[in-house]
Amino acid sequence: MLNDSLVLDRTFAALADPARRGMLARLAHGPASVSELAEPLRMSLPAVMQHLKAMESSGLIASEKRGRVRTVRLKPGTLTAAERWIRDRRSEWEAHLDRFEAYLSTLKNDGATQ
Amino acid sequence: MLNDSLVLDRTFAALADPARRGMLARLAHGPASVSELAEPLRMSLPAVMQHLKAMESSGLIASEKRGRVRTVRLKPGTLTAAERWIRDRRSEWEAHLDRFEAYLSTLKNDGATQ
Repeated sequence: MLNDSLVLDRTFAALADPARRGMLARLAHGPASVSELAEPLRMSLPAVMQHLKAMESSGLIASEKRGRVRTVRLKPGTLTAAERWIRDRRSEWEAHLDRFEAYLSTLKNDGATQ
Repeated sequence: MLNDSLVLDRTFAALADPARRGMLARLAHGPASVSELAEPLRMSLPAVMQHLKAMESSGLIASEKRGRVRTVRLKPGTLTAAERWIRDRRSEWEAHLDRFEAYLSTLKNDGATQ
């Protein structure tokens, strides 16, 4: 199993490409075949497969082949982990601003009472 | 000005590295000097500067030099844009699941009334 940091490395790397984000945006509306994902991108099937491989290795998607059709679906848990990492940093930043604001108002009050 | 897609490319690419995420996690608690950021990473100052450059170009951080000290601070807006992109995909996925569930229950009810 990949450790959390490696999962985040691969997830954010997978998200750093507009074609891959486009495919994820399509998959957020439901599973799709590889050809359906390739169509709006004007991209060769091997290029699409390469992108899908990068996303599958990070756990963002899963795929299954039935007969000649490979169907791809979103695995939302990996997106959630990436979202949580960012949200935690943002919360810490907001807590920092709150502390800073409280400190400033202490300084102001000290000035007013002197 | 960078377009939104390019900002997301650079932001997610900047987040795809444990050393850069470590620096952002430190900066979420407040501004820091370049040496303070370098210290826990056991990394050369030029290597740290390289990472900071990647994060500054994506708008994740800003830095300012006063005398001999360069102070780095988080720019939370860029993190928020990345977080929003992921959250929107997750919401679409949840809406898809709701529709799928509603469809399944329609099928079941149709079966029950026949």
